[in-house]
Amino acid sequence: MGAPREADGSVGAVTPQDMQFDEPLPLVSGAVMPSYSIRYETYGTLNAERSNAVLVCHALNASHHVAGWYEDDPKDIGWWDNLIGPGKPVDTDRFFVIGINNLGGCHGSTGPASINPATGKPWGADFPVVTVDDWVQVHARLADRLGIRQFAAVVGGSLGAMQSLQWTLRFPDRVRNSLVIAAAPKLSAQNIAFNEVARQAITTDPDFHGGNYYAHGVVPRRGLRIARMLGHITYLSDDAMAEKFGRELREGEFKFGFDVEFEIESYLRYQGDKFSTYFDANTYLRITKALDYFDPAMAHGGNLAAALAGAKARFLVISFTSDWRFSPGRSREIVKALLDNGHDVSYAEIDAPHGHDAFLMDDPRYHGVVRAYMNNIAT
Amino acid sequence: MGAPREADGSVGAVTPQDMQFDEPLPLVSGAVMPSYSIRYETYGTLNAERSNAVLVCHALNASHHVAGWYEDDPKDIGWWDNLIGPGKPVDTDRFFVIGINNLGGCHGSTGPASINPATGKPWGADFPVVTVDDWVQVHARLADRLGIRQFAAVVGGSLGAMQSLQWTLRFPDRVRNSLVIAAAPKLSAQNIAFNEVARQAITTDPDFHGGNYYAHGVVPRRGLRIARMLGHITYLSDDAMAEKFGRELREGEFKFGFDVEFEIESYLRYQGDKFSTYFDANTYLRITKALDYFDPAMAHGGNLAAALAGAKARFLVISFTSDWRFSPGRSREIVKALLDNGHDVSYAEIDAPHGHDAFLMDDPRYHGVVRAYMNNIAT
Repeated sequence: MGAPREADGSVGAVTPQDMQFDEPLPLVSGAVMPSYSIRYETYGTLNAERSNAVLVCHALNASHHVAGWYEDDPKDIGWWDNLIGPGKPVDTDRFFVIGINNLGGCHGSTGPASINPATGKPWGADFPVVTVDDWVQVHARLADRLGIRQFAAVVGGSLGAMQSLQWTLRFPDRVRNSLVIAAAPKLSAQNIAFNEVARQAITTDPDFHGGNYYAHGVVPRRGLRIARMLGHITYLSDDAMAEKFGRELREGEFKFGFDVEFEIESYLRYQGDKFSTYFDANTYLRITKALDYFDPAMAHGGNLAAALAGAKARFLVISFTSDWRFSPGRSREIVKALLDNGHDVSYAEIDAPHGHDAFLMDDPRYHGVVRAYMNNIAT
Repeated sequence: MGAPREADGSVGAVTPQDMQFDEPLPLVSGAVMPSYSIRYETYGTLNAERSNAVLVCHALNASHHVAGWYEDDPKDIGWWDNLIGPGKPVDTDRFFVIGINNLGGCHGSTGPASINPATGKPWGADFPVVTVDDWVQVHARLADRLGIRQFAAVVGGSLGAMQSLQWTLRFPDRVRNSLVIAAAPKLSAQNIAFNEVARQAITTDPDFHGGNYYAHGVVPRRGLRIARMLGHITYLSDDAMAEKFGRELREGEFKFGFDVEFEIESYLRYQGDKFSTYFDANTYLRITKALDYFDPAMAHGGNLAAALAGAKARFLVISFTSDWRFSPGRSREIVKALLDNGHDVSYAEIDAPHGHDAFLMDDPRYHGVVRAYMNNIAT
């Protein structure tokens, strides 16, 4: 009874699909994926002209399950369900929306926990490092198979936004609009530093076994837990944390021990515990590396404008004032480089208190901007 | 030959001393330390009136070794040697300066690795949780034994500044000046969150053994390493990291693996490795708890001005623009609360790029402010 109904603007019950690819995929690293399977979901209807497709790219710990819910688990609602659905800012009455789990993920697509056909055992440490550009290649192959030559829009937040930007560079003729939300054109040293601490927590966990923990029947849960706790700090603004938790004590007074005392400790431990039960550590390592590597300007001597010169899409760039992971200044670097090329770009800096996670929130100003932009896209 | 000479403004070769206390110390937690030893150093000469003593309080990982160097290890220079010495901003030609290793530390004072007289074994998990107020009590006992009734000044940065502030509340008649540098009147939820991730990294390390790792002949090195890496991120500003490391690659190109690629990774791993060889994990846990607990306004319904009403010292409060751990706004909370009481307070917000660590740096504007303030203190 608690499940969202289609009348609520939900796409309703959805069913993930798997697509098998047997043509080898050369990766940026030089490695080759011999074959792989990609899990995805679609919402809405592809029109006769196949011109209304929208690709949604996910960030660190999300998946293909972008909107709607599952018949057998109505509480498992898509991670961007507040943005995507009938009558919503990304309107599935107009657009055919595709959510996809990236290669190397742990939500159904081929990843480090999958069986390596060459050995009959889990890939583990042998699973290659994947990059944002590799993911975009996979997206394009899936689009080919669905008969989609050109996306009306590619949409993403955070790491998803990096994919949305990369799409306009790798396949400039195949994307008409790029929504780049809560992004950065590359990680800063501090961003890389946080990723590195998370990775070190995982790889030094005795249960990591060099990445081949599957064979040992264990999971580097301690490391994953630390990685997730740390991540959460960077997703929230200092103010949002103060507002939500402040210095509230669990039991009203100091206990002078090492059990939970402050509410923020309880929250972080809970988030870490939960994450460590379902997320694959090898996937976490690879996704943080994809973040670290993303730097389209690198091949152009650090000149971002030169890197973005070939893009043909129109752009909507959105940042959030309280985001200290990828601050508005990072989005403005992208906007400036696009404008330097005379590209068509809209930019909105949303005054929001939630920090980096604001891109997932149901904020009326933010959603209003996305709605207005999407409404102007011809299909 | 490389050792600083007295002519360079160094206090020269110094020798730490130990003072044994056999009178039990009741702690804020309700526990009692039956006896304990405190390691300290002194520089300069106590004048006949015993009116020129300056106490220097240390932060998370520093010690009593504040200035000078050791005859048998000339490269082991005190952590605040750039500030303290003959002719320096805290001038040892005028002041008798005392550095002290706090109770619970791991640099010579009684701490968790010390022998518990009740058991004949290391204290380990049984070592009590200590607070800023407990440390101030110990400082006062040491001052008693040295015949110092009143300090000309108590000086500290970061957690040391919290002790400097607490001194004016606990012993208002025993401190004439309080230098509160890079401080906060209490930790924010985000500050506590970072501490909690560090603690969880340590306590979930399989080598922690519930805090009694000494008996197992191991050290929770993995956890300490993660804690230190994380700490370092919060000590440096984003800009300072960008300036120092940027996205520089160790070997000039991506390696698509999990060894060090970016210089920032190398730096953090090195800092973590080094720290984990000498710092005691139980001390780290307790010092972060002391930080979390510090909140003088708590007993006054959150009213900081009420908490500071009884102070009689003059204050110098200093903050640094790029410090995001304890931002200038946190120092201004202290300044406002002091001014609300009509206390004598000077405030300097130093435009410095180094982040929280700026309080340790040799910055001419910062040191100029300290020098001018200290020069005005009558002895």
